[in-house]
Amino acid sequence: MQLNVNLKDCAYPITIQRNALNNIQETIQTNRKIMIITDSGVPQKWIDIVSSQCLDSFIVTIPNGEQSKCFKQYEELLLEAIEHEMTRKDAIIALGGGVVGDLAGFVAATYMRGIDFYNIPTTLLSQVDSSVGGKVAIDAGNYKNIVGAFWQPKAVIIDPNVLSTLPQRHINNGLVEALKTGLIQDKELVELFKQDDLDIDQIIYRSINVKRKVVEQDERESSLRKILNFGHTIGHAIEGAYGLDTYLHGECVAMGMLFFIDNKELKEDVLKIYEKLHLPKVPDYDVDTLMNFIQHDKKSSSSSITIVLVKQAGTYELQEVSYDTIKTYLERGPYEK
Amino acid sequence: MQLNVNLKDCAYPITIQRNALNNIQETIQTNRKIMIITDSGVPQKWIDIVSSQCLDSFIVTIPNGEQSKCFKQYEELLLEAIEHEMTRKDAIIALGGGVVGDLAGFVAATYMRGIDFYNIPTTLLSQVDSSVGGKVAIDAGNYKNIVGAFWQPKAVIIDPNVLSTLPQRHINNGLVEALKTGLIQDKELVELFKQDDLDIDQIIYRSINVKRKVVEQDERESSLRKILNFGHTIGHAIEGAYGLDTYLHGECVAMGMLFFIDNKELKEDVLKIYEKLHLPKVPDYDVDTLMNFIQHDKKSSSSSITIVLVKQAGTYELQEVSYDTIKTYLERGPYEK
Ligand SMILES: NC(=O)c1ccc[n+]([C@@H]2O[C@H](COP(=O)([O-])OP(=O)(O)OC[C@H]3O[C@@H](n4cnc5c(N)ncnc54)[C@H](O)[C@@H]3O)[C@@H](O)[C@H]2O)c1
Ligand SMILES: NC(=O)c1ccc[n+]([C@@H]2O[C@H](COP(=O)([O-])OP(=O)(O)OC[C@H]3O[C@@H](n4cnc5c(N)ncnc54)[C@H](O)[C@@H]3O)[C@@H](O)[C@H]2O)c1
Ligand SMILES: [Zn+2]
Ligand SMILES: [Zn+2]
Repeated sequence: MQLNVNLKDCAYPITIQRNALNNIQETIQTNRKIMIITDSGVPQKWIDIVSSQCLDSFIVTIPNGEQSKCFKQYEELLLEAIEHEMTRKDAIIALGGGVVGDLAGFVAATYMRGIDFYNIPTTLLSQVDSSVGGKVAIDAGNYKNIVGAFWQPKAVIIDPNVLSTLPQRHINNGLVEALKTGLIQDKELVELFKQDDLDIDQIIYRSINVKRKVVEQDERESSLRKILNFGHTIGHAIEGAYGLDTYLHGECVAMGMLFFIDNKELKEDVLKIYEKLHLPKVPDYDVDTLMNFIQHDKKSSSSSITIVLVKQAGTYELQEVSYDTIKTYLERGPYEK
Repeated sequence: MQLNVNLKDCAYPITIQRNALNNIQETIQTNRKIMIITDSGVPQKWIDIVSSQCLDSFIVTIPNGEQSKCFKQYEELLLEAIEHEMTRKDAIIALGGGVVGDLAGFVAATYMRGIDFYNIPTTLLSQVDSSVGGKVAIDAGNYKNIVGAFWQPKAVIIDPNVLSTLPQRHINNGLVEALKTGLIQDKELVELFKQDDLDIDQIIYRSINVKRKVVEQDERESSLRKILNFGHTIGHAIEGAYGLDTYLHGECVAMGMLFFIDNKELKEDVLKIYEKLHLPKVPDYDVDTLMNFIQHDKKSSSSSITIVLVKQAGTYELQEVSYDTIKTYLERGPYEK
């Protein structure tokens, strides 16, 4: 399967296909110097498959984990590119999850003011989420993704086979973001989650397709793209306050969505899906602690905030509400209604 | 006087006017948080004039000199932006020469994936050269401008009055880049250099206008923009090999152009202008040393290099030549013909 992302200045293909990893030459021009950036948690066999298809590549392995999305790693990778005398015509391949993709993408965006970037996401989260949209970044000063750029890949290669080595908890983590896109824009995608055996390939395809359409309409996140933040306002706060070592991002987003599903039946359906995915329950939380995180997160002087509400699977509503309103949502709790 | 730079995705005005510094509100929306980045060599009075017109600004002063265009300063400036809780809607003003403009522009390009950037260049070089084109960058691993982005300013404000505090040598340094644009694209601009009293305002205006047209046609430096490198191939090599503490960039470009002015009379005219500007003579050089720098500089596996030749003031010729040909130019020397 293939999807094309059509943006104002560029277009790029996303291949979603089993064994695509063994045929990267179909989309990547490999007869030049290629820096393969990966992390210490990505199984060697996937790295070997990719590098064996490149004629003149070198591999840089960063430590796995979010803390690699930092200035230090960013600088080190750029110095590697310089040391290998990479030119404007060479390319970078990201082979890993969202951490590798975001960091490698930012290196590609800024080395010599931008060189070719290919993304081969190997976690489900990065396949369904960070593979589309061109957002690349590092973290700084307690903020995630505060420094970065919009830099579109030349191509994205998604091979569901790589998920065979990914721990189930990380699979479920990615599934949450897929479910999120279904809830706001694709009822049939939500239905896919009700099957006994999940059709991962279809889920990937459909959720990328939703994100693709949104990004095509709002490349630089000025308006529509906000709907992808469904569940993230409170999700991020839980992640910041209680999640760092306890929960994965998707797990927090799952919690965050519950507050804004405004339909009893749909919420019950969603909770059944959560059970199937063994997602953690929303922990006891302190309202003021979360409110602090929400205000910090927005980093905005404005007194209101846009929330995404879902009343029916596949549709969303945007509401501009005060922080006090958010507080009432928190006070009411995720399982009410 | 005003020029408009019209690019595919954006357009921005360049104001060239005495006292423009006292009226920045005409082009800069100052009712938001503004980070004014400047350096320790910029006279306080210019800083005061700018900051007094901003309602909510803070000033960050970096040490002057090329060595500030580094990762460390880049990171520190971003951390300043974070600490001041700057949002996506706030803005950065660069008030200084090319060092400040390049660094501040790169910070603006990447903070929160890009915020508004205003450039108020205060050296003649930055006024005639770095104010147009959107190239922002820092240096790393012995390469100038190796890490950066294309990030267009929202507006550029050029007030020739600020040059009143700039040492004459730096004025002449900037004049070389202006003369360069004249030589490749504007005969009348070259004529302006023959007057007894130089009309700086006109020189700024005309050279920006040349660069504007070139950049409009080739925003991302894929082809035409190469002509702006006239004199830079050998100029950069002299700068790298002999110039670091001895010569200014423009002085090296002046030397570099001599090799590629292919017209006896024109070269005599140019040498007269150089005398008036008190530019240094080309030093004794070692051909192999310079050749090494040239090959290193290109950072390209290709065996040829594009040179810009001027046979008549206001016109250029592009030639794709081998490194051996460059070597013959060096062997022949700058004053031959
Ligand atoms: N750019 C975007 O649009 C976007 C969108 C969503 C998330 N993100 C970012 O993505 C990051 C999270 O991504 P993530 O969840 O992929 O985390 P991750 O990149 O940290 O990967 C999770 C873990 O899985 C390991 N791993 C990767 N592939 C594997 C495989 N095939 N088999 C076994 N192990 C494997 C990694 O080594 C890592 O330890 C965050 O930094 C987030 O900000 C970016
Ligand atoms: N982005 C581009 O397109 C572009 C083009 C050309 C050059 N550049 C970059 O510009 C830099 C060189 O710029 P530069 O020549 O302006 O050097 P600079 O920025 O170092 O300024 C030279 C000196 O003049 C001082 N100064 C600045 N304004 C002054 C004023 N009004 N009065 C007195 N002193 C003043 C500065 O403090 C500094 O010490 C290089 O890093 C080069 O790479 C960029
Ligand atoms: Zn998310
Ligand atoms: Zn120059």
